[in-house]
Amino acid sequence: MRESELLKHIYGRSAKLLSQFSQVLVGPGHDCAVVASGSPVLLKIDQLVAGRHYRDGTPLDLVARKAIARAVSDIAASGGTPLAALAGATLPDAYPNANELFDAMARWAEHFGCPLVGGDIATSSAPGSPLVLSVSIIGSPHASRGPVLRSGAQPGDGVFVTGAVGGSFDPTTGLGPHLTFEPRLVEAKFLCDTLGPRLRAMMDVSDGLGRDAGRLASMSGVAIELKESALPLRTPGLPWRAAVGDGEDYELLFAAAGEVPPRCPATGTPLTRIGTVKAGSGASIVLRDGTRVDVSALGWDHGMGAQTA
Amino acid sequence: MRESELLKHIYGRSAKLLSQFSQVLVGPGHDCAVVASGSPVLLKIDQLVAGRHYRDGTPLDLVARKAIARAVSDIAASGGTPLAALAGATLPDAYPNANELFDAMARWAEHFGCPLVGGDIATSSAPGSPLVLSVSIIGSPHASRGPVLRSGAQPGDGVFVTGAVGGSFDPTTGLGPHLTFEPRLVEAKFLCDTLGPRLRAMMDVSDGLGRDAGRLASMSGVAIELKESALPLRTPGLPWRAAVGDGEDYELLFAAAGEVPPRCPATGTPLTRIGTVKAGSGASIVLRDGTRVDVSALGWDHGMGAQTA
Repeated sequence: MRESELLKHIYGRSAKLLSQFSQVLVGPGHDCAVVASGSPVLLKIDQLVAGRHYRDGTPLDLVARKAIARAVSDIAASGGTPLAALAGATLPDAYPNANELFDAMARWAEHFGCPLVGGDIATSSAPGSPLVLSVSIIGSPHASRGPVLRSGAQPGDGVFVTGAVGGSFDPTTGLGPHLTFEPRLVEAKFLCDTLGPRLRAMMDVSDGLGRDAGRLASMSGVAIELKESALPLRTPGLPWRAAVGDGEDYELLFAAAGEVPPRCPATGTPLTRIGTVKAGSGASIVLRDGTRVDVSALGWDHGMGAQTA
Repeated sequence: MRESELLKHIYGRSAKLLSQFSQVLVGPGHDCAVVASGSPVLLKIDQLVAGRHYRDGTPLDLVARKAIARAVSDIAASGGTPLAALAGATLPDAYPNANELFDAMARWAEHFGCPLVGGDIATSSAPGSPLVLSVSIIGSPHASRGPVLRSGAQPGDGVFVTGAVGGSFDPTTGLGPHLTFEPRLVEAKFLCDTLGPRLRAMMDVSDGLGRDAGRLASMSGVAIELKESALPLRTPGLPWRAAVGDGEDYELLFAAAGEVPPRCPATGTPLTRIGTVKAGSGASIVLRDGTRVDVSALGWDHGMGAQTA
């Protein structure tokens, strides 16, 4: 297929975007898209690489969904609302499903409220070249709470997680929650609305609860202490190392001062206290037998594909 | 190298960004960057693929420059000012120069006024996997003229181009202007300032003057007629097919009503009238001998790598 045909296919969506999404002032087809935003805006880029972030044979719709949802999850983790998305695809030569792939990405982007307003297509004729998707999302911060960052956690804060962790990837099928997770947009907005400045710091759990807790601790200049007995496991009996190290949960990890409701009313998602912010540095877990283990290197050094659990 | 080390390297730049670029409210290190913007904003994504957009052996600094400058050129073509950039890189396994590559992209992004505020790194272990860079840029439109689009050209307008066209790629060395072009930010601002609403439509010439003129004509619902004798050639004696079909000029192609100054005073860049907007459709060139040739398919169907000149 020629780029011009694919572009025509994509531009066909432009008129629809203008009527459905009031923030889209100019859709695809020009050198830049034009999007209305509050000032400031949230910005995030994420990539999805075949063979790295999903297995060959994964249904195309789930590949497209994950490419979009991963970046949406970061907007959620910043307490924001997604406004618009851009997608780049580097396709192996003679890739037969470019139309379907962009359609699916456009559909999921609209589903999450951030219509695809721009894209770029390239091909690679290098033998064995993988499909590479790159998604950038612009979002608006929460109107009153403002952008929620990884910094801001203070000693004495509780440490919480939405939903459940671990077992996101089925090693037999390659499927699982890492493909079908729901970015926690509603929960993030509820936390911003309800806690306001008591919501001190937040991030999404992509590389593993341990490693990500270590990052939040590092950016806040504090230590985080988790409790094994408090972890909300996705499946009963899951070993704590899996819960802390599997990664790709795309749950919200947050630090909050004072009381936090037990669940998000609109979705029923549990909000579970799993630890405490302390003075110091690093992230550790206190096991049921009282042992303390450093977990700040447990999980995926993700982009590099090295799991160190 | 581990992602955590590379990220640490990147985050080291964050503090500097905050002090140097007032639009950066939160730099790298959190789930999203936060950037102040006017509303609306311009959005553009572009990719650079090894073996497709540059040859193996091209100096890394020029690869980084082109990755950033291509997207900056689209912001310029929309009459805007770049505000911030995001960069994604999919690296072949064991790629040794990740630090240098991101440093160079960051340096060029800052050079063009759009500091790198977010990034994503992935690796691919597929044998032969090429380096893929993806750059997204957010910009603010011209304050009074607003976003300049590809639509808006009207019969009777003059058709103009900045600088010179053709011969952007040296087939012997693989080097040339396609790597070192200066995005026409100053010229675009001058045109918006000076012409205001008389600047009807604009785009950058990436895939070839012929094909791109065809796109501008199509988006404006008009025909564009170029004159061979008027083309500003990069090198004397260049055949018209090269001038119209080589592509990667990254010059501004624009339609304007009334007088246009002969050059941009601040840079000296020539602003050359090369044709006229007419009623109808498509893009054609009138040769010195009076023959008319359809040029709307001359150039690169770029992403797909097929040159049809």
